[in-house]
Amino acid sequence: MKKIIHIFLLVTGISTAFSQTHPSLTITKEGLQEIKANLGRSELFDRSLADIKLQLEEEMAKGIDVPVPKDMAGGYTHETHRKNYSLLEAAGYLFQITGEEKYADFVKQGLLKYAKLYPSLGKHPSKKSYTPGKLFWQCLNDANWLVSVSQAYDCIYHRLNVEEREMVEGDLFRPFADFLSIENPHFFNRIHNHSTWGCAGVGMIGLVMNDQELVNRALFGISSDGISSTQKDNDGALIKAEGQEKSGFFAQIDGLFSPDGLYSEGAYYHRYGIYPFLIFAVSIQNTMPEHKIFAYRDSLLLKSVDALLNQSTSKGDFFPFNDAQKGMSIYNTSLISAVDIAYYYGARNPELLSIAEKQGSVTPDQAGMKVSLDMDKKKPFSLKSKIYRDGIDGRSGGIGILRADEDINLVYKFGTHGMGHGHFDQLSYSFYQNGEEVVQDYGMARFVNIEQKAGGVYLPENTTFAKQTVGHNTVVVNGKTQYNGNTDLADRHSPALRFLDISNPKLQVISAVDSSAYEGVKQERTLLLINDSQYFENPLVIDLFYLKNESSGTYDLPLYYQGQLLNTNFHYSPATDELRKLGESNGYQHIWKEAGAVATKKHISFSSLSNNVFYTFSSAVSLGDSLFFGRTGATDPNFNLRRDPLFLIRKKSKGSVLFANVIESHGSYTPVTEKAIEPYGTISELRIIKDNEDYSAVVIKTKENTEVLVAVSHQNDALEHVLETEAGTFKWKGNYLIKTYKN
Amino acid sequence: MKKIIHIFLLVTGISTAFSQTHPSLTITKEGLQEIKANLGRSELFDRSLADIKLQLEEEMAKGIDVPVPKDMAGGYTHETHRKNYSLLEAAGYLFQITGEEKYADFVKQGLLKYAKLYPSLGKHPSKKSYTPGKLFWQCLNDANWLVSVSQAYDCIYHRLNVEEREMVEGDLFRPFADFLSIENPHFFNRIHNHSTWGCAGVGMIGLVMNDQELVNRALFGISSDGISSTQKDNDGALIKAEGQEKSGFFAQIDGLFSPDGLYSEGAYYHRYGIYPFLIFAVSIQNTMPEHKIFAYRDSLLLKSVDALLNQSTSKGDFFPFNDAQKGMSIYNTSLISAVDIAYYYGARNPELLSIAEKQGSVTPDQAGMKVSLDMDKKKPFSLKSKIYRDGIDGRSGGIGILRADEDINLVYKFGTHGMGHGHFDQLSYSFYQNGEEVVQDYGMARFVNIEQKAGGVYLPENTTFAKQTVGHNTVVVNGKTQYNGNTDLADRHSPALRFLDISNPKLQVISAVDSSAYEGVKQERTLLLINDSQYFENPLVIDLFYLKNESSGTYDLPLYYQGQLLNTNFHYSPATDELRKLGESNGYQHIWKEAGAVATKKHISFSSLSNNVFYTFSSAVSLGDSLFFGRTGATDPNFNLRRDPLFLIRKKSKGSVLFANVIESHGSYTPVTEKAIEPYGTISELRIIKDNEDYSAVVIKTKENTEVLVAVSHQNDALEHVLETEAGTFKWKGNYLIKTYKN
Repeated sequence: MKKIIHIFLLVTGISTAFSQTHPSLTITKEGLQEIKANLGRSELFDRSLADIKLQLEEEMAKGIDVPVPKDMAGGYTHETHRKNYSLLEAAGYLFQITGEEKYADFVKQGLLKYAKLYPSLGKHPSKKSYTPGKLFWQCLNDANWLVSVSQAYDCIYHRLNVEEREMVEGDLFRPFADFLSIENPHFFNRIHNHSTWGCAGVGMIGLVMNDQELVNRALFGISSDGISSTQKDNDGALIKAEGQEKSGFFAQIDGLFSPDGLYSEGAYYHRYGIYPFLIFAVSIQNTMPEHKIFAYRDSLLLKSVDALLNQSTSKGDFFPFNDAQKGMSIYNTSLISAVDIAYYYGARNPELLSIAEKQGSVTPDQAGMKVSLDMDKKKPFSLKSKIYRDGIDGRSGGIGILRADEDINLVYKFGTHGMGHGHFDQLSYSFYQNGEEVVQDYGMARFVNIEQKAGGVYLPENTTFAKQTVGHNTVVVNGKTQYNGNTDLADRHSPALRFLDISNPKLQVISAVDSSAYEGVKQERTLLLINDSQYFENPLVIDLFYLKNESSGTYDLPLYYQGQLLNTNFHYSPATDELRKLGESNGYQHIWKEAGAVATKKHISFSSLSNNVFYTFSSAVSLGDSLFFGRTGATDPNFNLRRDPLFLIRKKSKGSVLFANVIESHGSYTPVTEKAIEPYGTISELRIIKDNEDYSAVVIKTKENTEVLVAVSHQNDALEHVLETEAGTFKWKGNYLIKTYKN
Repeated sequence: MKKIIHIFLLVTGISTAFSQTHPSLTITKEGLQEIKANLGRSELFDRSLADIKLQLEEEMAKGIDVPVPKDMAGGYTHETHRKNYSLLEAAGYLFQITGEEKYADFVKQGLLKYAKLYPSLGKHPSKKSYTPGKLFWQCLNDANWLVSVSQAYDCIYHRLNVEEREMVEGDLFRPFADFLSIENPHFFNRIHNHSTWGCAGVGMIGLVMNDQELVNRALFGISSDGISSTQKDNDGALIKAEGQEKSGFFAQIDGLFSPDGLYSEGAYYHRYGIYPFLIFAVSIQNTMPEHKIFAYRDSLLLKSVDALLNQSTSKGDFFPFNDAQKGMSIYNTSLISAVDIAYYYGARNPELLSIAEKQGSVTPDQAGMKVSLDMDKKKPFSLKSKIYRDGIDGRSGGIGILRADEDINLVYKFGTHGMGHGHFDQLSYSFYQNGEEVVQDYGMARFVNIEQKAGGVYLPENTTFAKQTVGHNTVVVNGKTQYNGNTDLADRHSPALRFLDISNPKLQVISAVDSSAYEGVKQERTLLLINDSQYFENPLVIDLFYLKNESSGTYDLPLYYQGQLLNTNFHYSPATDELRKLGESNGYQHIWKEAGAVATKKHISFSSLSNNVFYTFSSAVSLGDSLFFGRTGATDPNFNLRRDPLFLIRKKSKGSVLFANVIESHGSYTPVTEKAIEPYGTISELRIIKDNEDYSAVVIKTKENTEVLVAVSHQNDALEHVLETEAGTFKWKGNYLIKTYKN
């Protein structure tokens, strides 16, 4: 609270200090000199500029159409206005960089057309949004428009005469900004990516027009917004979160990122939200450097770029936490802009240059030019093992990214729920090798912008399957989804980190505990990622999932493995003649049961071939545990789900229960030579040797008769442990032990 | 017959003419000079040689183990003997090229060890082959060994003294060659790839040892082999085909290729068989050039290399006709050797050089050196639209490869059955775009060399599903597989080409007719591949499948589309609660029924997204036709099948029946930008306007109101056609008409 007041005073003190020079938002006079002096001298910038020119001129030849708004996304008026703001922005930059008047004329013509149209517009005729815009069906898109067109206006400001400026400001920009803010406070005053766009648009046009009131509104929100505490948006999320006291851009930086730069909704939405944050920050930095916006909250915006880039596989795909469409990656345009801005306005980290090079494009501004000019300083971008604390104070768990090397990634979720886009998947993990999924997170059930699939919106199966606990690699208690599927409740709780060691890439461990997802149930999952021949020949994931329940219960642990099932070491009954659903609700209704078994041995395993790598999945089970092979796709009348395989272990227990699993990656298959290298794993035995309230311990035996003991203490306070097992007595300090021994 | 006698006389006339110089098989004295003179001068050869050296020396350091044979494929003794022959061959070449004695010593040591072991060996202890070898479980692998080790012996021949030569020839090579031939005539005397390997091995060692009798045996077979007419091999194929009169290498060239170089079993087995054909031919060429072996049968061996290379997608993957594992491609080592040999001993086609460059490796001999030296003459290899006649006289139908451009391929099968590896899929097709499957051929149900899957052999589902008609994109009559699943019967018949025009890449057409797969049923399928904006904006496949039956019947046409189903233009009943099999036999037992519908409109369609391209599949159906969405994987207790989607149209008819289908490829989806370009096709209507014994005709209407008529005549002899339709009267000459008109 103290920090915010300080800044407010600071801003008040400099209320008229920002510049009236143009351009000043994202290109400054000095930046422009630098750009012009270096044209033709650095390949990446020149190529990027040529690409923009090519696309723009093709469109300019057709002229600019400014139709009366009518359509939803995908329709003509929507797509035309969307295209227009990109073209106007591009033309603005090209005018500044090349000095060619045709670009300025194009922007001018566009602005005047919009200024003529805008006063005649009421709210968009469609009524599908909780906050309809004027040009588009939702204010969000109007804000997208304003962020782009503010930059265009800044670039050609001096090409308009006073009358023209009065017209575009009086008829278009000022009412546009008011509409997005004071006329729609429930859009503008949230702590939400929609409002980030709103603030950025209003603030940026305010800076261009030298309108202090708009700028302050953008930075600090609207003081009395009259939003009711029960009002919700289209995703069913509350407009105003419980306890929200502040609004505006600073409040959004405070409220949407953890101190480590983690964005609660996940990388997919982070990618969408990062652009307005950064582009408005750049505008503030260039016009009101006193704010030191990039240093704000310990350089949080820059940190968040790092956090986002690191939430990706070695191929660059984002880990699809929560609602996320697979295939979104560091190659998205908002990441191009993020990388350039983070380099230029940050510490000039040479690793960012190698990402820019892979992206193959830079922004047409001073940041993009600097990146391009500095390319020979580039260093490889190293993906890191890293824990990101979650929650605005960093005290709501987090996510863990463990990398044995860049190509072997284990991703663990134990943070906040993720608001309207969250999945009920606390303590779940996913596993990647060579940028490919080995144990997948399903992602979302939605085909963005594919109109055939319900217009591209979220599909019903997103709620009924993709968000449900059984759709993830974590335990389902008594067949119910975590928090009984209640988002508000889930948003108020989170697991906590128990212990962690990611300093040694050969042996990493992370453990988290949850006590709120299921009433009366404490869940504690410890994951080890091992790539060390001292213990095992091959990369290995060891997963010890311990639950303590006050009552008796049923515990299901799904494993969304990939690829072709090769064999099992246990007998099962295949459903050869007909398939039935695994259940009726909580996501189970979407799973076909392909095979079932009852464990008659204590070490069960199966192997698969996925992306030409062999995997063996082992579990130490109890006699009588139920085992299932399943496949997604039941209760799916519109073929909205993929048909993906899973394995599920079901345990029934009166008190505590321990799932002990091991995933071994081994060998490879080459179709063109038909060579199978090491098709079998090296683990010959997996055995639980301790399972009580104090310890979980397993022994893993390899074919070369190495025995490795892995033990986890469930008591945080114990400093020295003494564990008596059938394999001997072990003493150690700390939360866990891994030890090779001969029995 | 005349030709064969001629050659026999020729050979008899030159019985002792071949050289005793060494090496003389695949490297000649002159070739060696050329190689030595150019070492260090051409990158591809030098790199290939360095790779071989690296691998060989690593193994040489371990020494050569020659264990007593015991294991099946995958086991130690099998894999060791397999490795040994490759190492010996490589060491032989390296000795000749570098002159370094260590390589010769390694070969010598190996040969002496084998010479010591061999006399003690009986038949291999496993009894799984119809023809067990001595080193390996089947003679085939022994022959592989002999082909390689003959080359090794040739290379170090002069490094053995007379006693050593007597030992390796007397104790090893001569008995080895006799074992593979006169002691196993049912292995040696077939017209089959097994025997090609046998003849190559026996012939090549005969050439090295200057043993005329062995050479003649290899070229012309064993005269009285005593093979019974009912004897069969492990695949259930007859050892001696009905009417087979000749044996040996020439007979195999005569009997295994069509005049166009097509190999009846398909590209996957062609790839395996081509190596012994070519390497023995090279040996013959270098020692007995009088045979003009590469000119034999109109240069058939060289032609067959072309045919094989052209049976691939733009990515280089072979079309998986018949038994074939997907992923086998022009990058297989036997294709590296084939390309080098075809270039050097053929017409020095510069297009082959660009394939060699993509393969990234050449053979360590004079052919490889020439390819490497000539690399700057390379021209792009152009994949062609091409019809390959099938049958040894070219009169048994064929296969058609239609390419709109290199990236859009339609592959049509109307040739021979394919013997033991054949599928019952006459008149089926598959369709590719950008090297990816759009309409797939399932390939085989086998995981080669993956021991977990039944030791890597053919799985039961290969017979019960992959070979069955319903597993392919062709009509199943009355729920039965073609020829009632009888291979011998199927091998005796084939469809015939009706008409063809592949001269214009914008508009290609092929039509074939079958009258034997189903008794009393004439099937006639005409496929058009169109990539011409005169007719349609997008690439299109038009498929008119006309059947004429003497009795009434049920007709099922499956379509193995790929990717995610997006939407349909018809209502269906999804199987949401349980899945049932589509049938009980003939492959239907392996298909789950995911949805069913009864046609209530005459133009039905659905769209899919596959590999980020949109596709729309349209059919003109009759009211009351049954429609199904299915998925493979029923009756699959061991998870041996993939879970792949299909669509199936079922018609019941008393007389003739016409399936009229159109596949339109349109637009694209980019996950990283989430842009969907042209997600809808342009076809608004597909209508049958003529369906009788004389003509099939459809009208296809686009959204821009273009109407295109496609008509096919079922009468071959008609020269001038007059077709009266609701759309007017059309007159034309030839088998088909395509015409744009306004109604």
